[in-house]
Amino acid sequence: MSELVRGSGSETDAAVSDGRLLRGARSRRAIERHAVDVASLEGLSGLSFGRLATDLGLSKSGVQTLFGTKESLQVAAAGSARDAFTDAVIRPALAVPRGAARLRALIDQWIGYAEEPLFPGGCFWAANLADFDSKPGPVRDALLRQQRDWRGFIATELRHAADAGEVADLDTELAAFQLDAVLVAANIALRCGDREAGDKVRRVLESFLVPPR
Amino acid sequence: MSELVRGSGSETDAAVSDGRLLRGARSRRAIERHAVDVASLEGLSGLSFGRLATDLGLSKSGVQTLFGTKESLQVAAAGSARDAFTDAVIRPALAVPRGAARLRALIDQWIGYAEEPLFPGGCFWAANLADFDSKPGPVRDALLRQQRDWRGFIATELRHAADAGEVADLDTELAAFQLDAVLVAANIALRCGDREAGDKVRRVLESFLVPPR
Repeated sequence: MSELVRGSGSETDAAVSDGRLLRGARSRRAIERHAVDVASLEGLSGLSFGRLATDLGLSKSGVQTLFGTKESLQVAAAGSARDAFTDAVIRPALAVPRGAARLRALIDQWIGYAEEPLFPGGCFWAANLADFDSKPGPVRDALLRQQRDWRGFIATELRHAADAGEVADLDTELAAFQLDAVLVAANIALRCGDREAGDKVRRVLESFLVPPR
Repeated sequence: MSELVRGSGSETDAAVSDGRLLRGARSRRAIERHAVDVASLEGLSGLSFGRLATDLGLSKSGVQTLFGTKESLQVAAAGSARDAFTDAVIRPALAVPRGAARLRALIDQWIGYAEEPLFPGGCFWAANLADFDSKPGPVRDALLRQQRDWRGFIATELRHAADAGEVADLDTELAAFQLDAVLVAANIALRCGDREAGDKVRRVLESFLVPPR
């Protein structure tokens, strides 16, 4: 990121320097990642080419050329958020055996993600789904697709736990909907100083992981 | 509301007319109620004296005089939202006997509130708590107080159901936290076209209302 924020001399120097910096996917990814941080605090609606350019010491036209429209920038930011979330929360849980153990690891990773926020505004989807539910279009579609994938991942692991006889019969789709809802509520609670929010999430998960009698 | 939106002639006429209109609590309440509608769609952060004045055909200075600061306007809007919510969701449920029956009525009223939205952007708290969790101050405090009261109301009714032997032993605080979380998730799902969201909420409630064995 440091190469994106170094100062530049005259306007022309800046343009030449921008030209070099903006070339290649690396700069694009760095801009997207910064857009995620901004959007976690102020919402994807609060993104603008001017704001990102100022924050990163780039020219606005350079950033705009890379992404085209604000909507494309927002969709790209959502993709970058998903990648960072996958690395921080999902990938570590995949190292744990499927089913109940993996679900416990997943929830532990998620609580870490919200408690020591990966994004400065906390959970990226908690903030943005509530904002974009009234705004049909490609950004909302991207966020909903990601939410569906996430709930689907939870439901699949719950099914594995049920198939392995680890838990009693369970409506896995409904339980995944509930767990996701509780995570979003816990994110808000954590940000507002409720230190028991992580514990609440763990207790809700355990209520689904009751072994068969 | 109609007296607030009628057109006016010259700037001076408007000022005189505003003076009359703005007198008294009735106009204040009407402005607050419109602020709730705007905030349900664009968030309490999106409120401005200028926007409200334009929408209602009033002078900006007149509206500003009534509320003083933007923060006071936001807190007043939160109070107005709570009053409208109480009338639409809570009061009808209070007519039903305490415990399980009242909880079922409450959830039915809530689904109606979200399906045929009382506020154009759907649930007022779903949108604004997610926005204000990163913004400490009196607005966030007001929203959190309202959320606490709402969860407390649900928990109390769950306790009544348990005390009356209608439901098995239950962690009522945790169940209230879960129900509220599921309602917020259902609000987003409904706004994004998920017609089964109301049914999901009812199934979650019933999972808490299991009679003792």
